[in-house]
Amino acid sequence: MIDTHPQFEQFVDAIVRIPFNQLLGLKLEKIDTHEAVMHFDMKKELIGNFLHGILHGGVISAVLDMAGGMVVMANAIHKNADKTLEEITTMLGKCSTVDLQVSYLAPGRGERFHAQAEIIKSGSKLSFTRMSLYNHEKTLIASASATYMLR
Amino acid sequence: MIDTHPQFEQFVDAIVRIPFNQLLGLKLEKIDTHEAVMHFDMKKELIGNFLHGILHGGVISAVLDMAGGMVVMANAIHKNADKTLEEITTMLGKCSTVDLQVSYLAPGRGERFHAQAEIIKSGSKLSFTRMSLYNHEKTLIASASATYMLR
Amino acid sequence: MIDTHPQFEQFVDAIVRIPFNQLLGLKLEKIDTHEAVMHFDMKKELIGNFLHGILHGGVISAVLDMAGGMVVMANAIHKNADKTLEEITTMLGKCSTVDLQVSYLAPGRGERFHAQAEIIKSGSKLSFTRMSLYNHEKTLIASASATYMLR
Amino acid sequence: MIDTHPQFEQFVDAIVRIPFNQLLGLKLEKIDTHEAVMHFDMKKELIGNFLHGILHGGVISAVLDMAGGMVVMANAIHKNADKTLEEITTMLGKCSTVDLQVSYLAPGRGERFHAQAEIIKSGSKLSFTRMSLYNHEKTLIASASATYMLR
Repeated sequence: MIDTHPQFEQFVDAIVRIPFNQLLGLKLEKIDTHEAVMHFDMKKELIGNFLHGILHGGVISAVLDMAGGMVVMANAIHKNADKTLEEITTMLGKCSTVDLQVSYLAPGRGERFHAQAEIIKSGSKLSFTRMSLYNHEKTLIASASATYMLR
Repeated sequence: MIDTHPQFEQFVDAIVRIPFNQLLGLKLEKIDTHEAVMHFDMKKELIGNFLHGILHGGVISAVLDMAGGMVVMANAIHKNADKTLEEITTMLGKCSTVDLQVSYLAPGRGERFHAQAEIIKSGSKLSFTRMSLYNHEKTLIASASATYMLR
Repeated sequence: MIDTHPQFEQFVDAIVRIPFNQLLGLKLEKIDTHEAVMHFDMKKELIGNFLHGILHGGVISAVLDMAGGMVVMANAIHKNADKTLEEITTMLGKCSTVDLQVSYLAPGRGERFHAQAEIIKSGSKLSFTRMSLYNHEKTLIASASATYMLR
Repeated sequence: MIDTHPQFEQFVDAIVRIPFNQLLGLKLEKIDTHEAVMHFDMKKELIGNFLHGILHGGVISAVLDMAGGMVVMANAIHKNADKTLEEITTMLGKCSTVDLQVSYLAPGRGERFHAQAEIIKSGSKLSFTRMSLYNHEKTLIASASATYMLR
């Protein structure tokens, strides 16, 4: 794990502690300036289709959006390593998703799911990511792309 | 509310009772063969950004996906009103989102949010919807489109 | 047609005269600060599937992107009516599409096609549009959304 | 280049000869069952912004859609190598784009552009691709994803 800013781990902790992320059970697996991997375990609360015992589509889109946002924020912290804790907190507080596109490729069946996000373009105003969701057997469940703004 | 199938309300109840939808606090406001409106109230668990007290992006995408799915299912029930309860349950159990695209237009600030979905094309295999999320002051928070498959 | 800037028609002419738009045969039908409608006629050069005599998907996405861009530019000219011709030319020259999403709903069959675009959010940096493509019989051929940046 | 069907090259030729693709100047560089690469050269007719001499956004979306369609068709021919020329022609004639999403990452500046497409899921009804457009200096110009139907 990179630690490009003295308080980097604090930012990550703050994000994982967001109630909705705690409900999802999101855990950070890997993070550097161009890639983030998060995972979460299947549980009853995340099911969307009881006939088939598969993930709620909303869980999938939420997790992929978070993974993309994580790598965009890590990249922004890295590019602003000289800024103070307060300045970075303000900057990250303004980071928002502009556009999210998700393709659902296979039913969300599995025990543990891994969301991988990579930055494909890091601009001064906009950053673009591509994301993938795999289950524990490496089946590709969903593919996504997103655009983020650091205002 | 339309009631094109004797068990129509049962289907709606089953969807609203899905744990993840209960967590979101989703309630059905209006449904007919071409439009669905659902609403939910702001609560601590749905916040994604505590600095600004706004909705988690994942909540927005989940709700819009659900609203689109609701109108697609209502439309499918209507087109298959002669089918048995079992046949319809099987059909709805196979309904899945293929593609979801969300544009985040304004911060998710408000007391109550309304997700409106309309079918723009209902085909034999694929159906397409457009969705909007408004807050209680009618500010447009997000706009979305989705493609669903009834296999 | 609005004419919010003395040189408004010149801008429109300049866009329609772009070689690629001339090839498409794009003509402006209606423009105001929130809506643009363009049309073009079917011709051999725009066919993508000779077995079925339907429009090339690339023609559809190109036209919808142009219609969205037209209304974003008209809106920007309106908001900057006090600027000089040179300043507006510079501003429009920097207008670019960030994200485009197109759903292909029905085969592109017809004699004349109408692309309608509306602004759903006009921000200081980003603007968002929704677009529809109809044929001469009002069949909805494609639905789209796009995000534009005025840097 | 794979040649999974005796008439494979004929199919490719037929696609490249489509008038709109000829106008774009599209040439096939590489094709196998999971990847297609096409290229085209900058020319006056493809410019969208004369102030900056960059590609028309519609050219970019058209080329990326074609590259995705090429790999989906190559994959389908491979999976149906035992079918007759007539059956395959019918199948390919029904292949259509369902959803296309394009992110414009950098101005379309360059001498030659390469569109790379890969299949990320090949299903019985739907296939999903991811595409990238690079210029001759390997600058990533656009990133895209698409869903295709083989009805």
